[in-house]
Amino acid sequence: MVESKLEKLVEEIAQRALNASYSLATLSTAKKNAVLERLAAELEDPKIREQLRVENERDLTAGETAGLSAALLDRLKLTPARMDSMVEGIRQVAALPDPVGQELERRQHATGFTLRKVRVPIGVIGIVYESRPNVTIDCAVLCLKSGNATILRGGREAFHSNQALAAIITRVLIAEGINPDAVQLIPTTDRYALSVLMKLDAYVHCLIPRGGEGLIRFVAENARMPVIKHYKGVCNVYIDPAADIDMAVSISVNAKCQRPSVCNAAENLVVHQDVLASHFIPIAKALHAEGVELRVDRLAADCLHQVGGIPFKTASEEDYHEEYLDKVIAVRTVDSLQAAIDFINAYGSGHSDAIVTADPQAAAAFQQGVDASSVYWNASTRFTDGFEFGLGAEIGISTDKLHARGPMGLTELTSYKFLIDGHGETRS
Amino acid sequence: MVESKLEKLVEEIAQRALNASYSLATLSTAKKNAVLERLAAELEDPKIREQLRVENERDLTAGETAGLSAALLDRLKLTPARMDSMVEGIRQVAALPDPVGQELERRQHATGFTLRKVRVPIGVIGIVYESRPNVTIDCAVLCLKSGNATILRGGREAFHSNQALAAIITRVLIAEGINPDAVQLIPTTDRYALSVLMKLDAYVHCLIPRGGEGLIRFVAENARMPVIKHYKGVCNVYIDPAADIDMAVSISVNAKCQRPSVCNAAENLVVHQDVLASHFIPIAKALHAEGVELRVDRLAADCLHQVGGIPFKTASEEDYHEEYLDKVIAVRTVDSLQAAIDFINAYGSGHSDAIVTADPQAAAAFQQGVDASSVYWNASTRFTDGFEFGLGAEIGISTDKLHARGPMGLTELTSYKFLIDGHGETRS
Repeated sequence: MVESKLEKLVEEIAQRALNASYSLATLSTAKKNAVLERLAAELEDPKIREQLRVENERDLTAGETAGLSAALLDRLKLTPARMDSMVEGIRQVAALPDPVGQELERRQHATGFTLRKVRVPIGVIGIVYESRPNVTIDCAVLCLKSGNATILRGGREAFHSNQALAAIITRVLIAEGINPDAVQLIPTTDRYALSVLMKLDAYVHCLIPRGGEGLIRFVAENARMPVIKHYKGVCNVYIDPAADIDMAVSISVNAKCQRPSVCNAAENLVVHQDVLASHFIPIAKALHAEGVELRVDRLAADCLHQVGGIPFKTASEEDYHEEYLDKVIAVRTVDSLQAAIDFINAYGSGHSDAIVTADPQAAAAFQQGVDASSVYWNASTRFTDGFEFGLGAEIGISTDKLHARGPMGLTELTSYKFLIDGHGETRS
Repeated sequence: MVESKLEKLVEEIAQRALNASYSLATLSTAKKNAVLERLAAELEDPKIREQLRVENERDLTAGETAGLSAALLDRLKLTPARMDSMVEGIRQVAALPDPVGQELERRQHATGFTLRKVRVPIGVIGIVYESRPNVTIDCAVLCLKSGNATILRGGREAFHSNQALAAIITRVLIAEGINPDAVQLIPTTDRYALSVLMKLDAYVHCLIPRGGEGLIRFVAENARMPVIKHYKGVCNVYIDPAADIDMAVSISVNAKCQRPSVCNAAENLVVHQDVLASHFIPIAKALHAEGVELRVDRLAADCLHQVGGIPFKTASEEDYHEEYLDKVIAVRTVDSLQAAIDFINAYGSGHSDAIVTADPQAAAAFQQGVDASSVYWNASTRFTDGFEFGLGAEIGISTDKLHARGPMGLTELTSYKFLIDGHGETRS
């Protein structure tokens, strides 16, 4: 498509989304849930599943031709189990309380009027994502339930799957008498369309990029509207001298090994120098037994060398910044609690960090000093998650500090407004 | 200064600010208040006031030479009354509750750990502002009380005044044993320094531009970090057919005339066509009596023409988008409540809008349908203000919808983090 045509297309989509957002903001909870239930029912229909399978097959064939990796092709695949899980996810969101309309504060002004602060939808949310087609449904559903209009911009690899899923959503919206502009998929994966979208701050209130760090940085650096993002999870576990040894071992192993490929898995183990022999060695043994590669600093290396039998590599400066997402951990020795906090603030990504200690004062200082979305005392970093934190569902985890930090659920997809109920009050 | 040197200078300022932010986040309320009280005392000291007067005089002389307008020169002037008001402002902020550490939520996880969501400072806040030197103190004080490090980038016109005020803050911080990097003024007004600052999202968490729309757009379009901004206040008053006539007159006059130069003053009057003769005419008479110029559409013009005696102009399309900040109002006739809502969503700036009506259903529909930070029923838009809304102090009014909307006080200068207190819990 020529650029001027693309510009017009994307701008029209954004304008229509803004227009649809006004009526979405006034929908009742029952109506929103009816839309979600109809969508779930459609995605359970064998005929519709067969249509989806055919469209998904087109993407898979194109992906194979384009030489996508087996891992990417797997992520692309809409298996019956994944469709079941989409349906289950939709019903879970339908069952969640509606944040819109919730009263946050109420005050009486001296002149007599009442001031209420109430939750409202953000308005128009753009979702920019890569391969997985289930994001199309997951994000549209969370935005719908929170009363937001959604503009979806999926990746090239899932183009046909995303188009087919978006068509189902459109049909459901029309059947329920909702303006179908409430959820729109940009019908091209041309990068220029994304560049246009990122400038439309007059219509789009927020962008949420989901995908690799490259995509996220591109959006964050070029968008004019606020971007809610998650760069990476470089999570740290600090072993304090007052740590219970068994707990230090079990938390380190759980944080690293229970699911190494996710963002709340530990990447750095920080150990106080006084407890290298007593605490680090048992942890190192347990991690090694789980097949974890250790990349350590000088003091930890000396200690491992003395004990023997545990293989290790020397850590480089870059290792401490790295999100391995694999069975590798970098080990850093510190000489004080403050040094541990400073290390974590310098090398961590502000996602999730833990201290293992029996000393409440050390724990409090760590929780106050570490600048991260989630700071753990004697628990594994693996709990950072919308479901575990009681949000019910999750659209992502923010490593930003404004608007939303950490796991983001329906509430984080809302803004607020002040409603003033008066009796003719004027300002003097 | 050459660009490479400027880059290094600004980057060092930002790095030092981030470093200082970690210790600021752990300061006690008593310590923060002691800093504020010492700052207030310094600004009351006649010797220091004399030094400030001399530095301010340098700016005023330079401003006269540069041909600044009388209005700009007046805004630049640090009069004794303005210094008194700065001191009073500092003491008011000291008296406000500290938002940091406030517990927002608490949950018990099934495995046993406790999850607490607590308020924390944002971190490093950059303030980009124009002429008024009192912004240096006002913003630094609000950021200090909320535990944030501040990078100030003032305008050229107030360069010497800002330097003198920043030097006082630095002295006070050192005297109280606080890292003086907690508040830093960029010691140049070179635009390139601002361009550098806007790219430093690794150190600066948020920018707040204060000034003209040009400056704000420049920052919003170029900054990589979140920007909290206020473009303009195009506020609307809608007169419903069920409006009490006296109330319609008094609210319209108050919203337009009580202080026309501020952002929460009304710029558009929206009138239902059925009550032009009954309601609009008395309002038009009252506004005319206050010296307000009326710019009206066809139906309103016809009505004014029939009555006679009230001068008016024809409104252009641009008039309805205009923030006059002056005794001018644009009048638009609508044929329904929904048309009023649509007009306001299309032409307003999402700041403050009011409906005058005795009909609670019309009021509820208006409050739900109008997408603005503050939506009034039977009260003047002039109340949108941090003090009036009970926030105690105000760093600005946000027309954004993410992070903060409407008046922003200390609470809006905070983020949150999740603290997890466990007993060795791991994820299975």
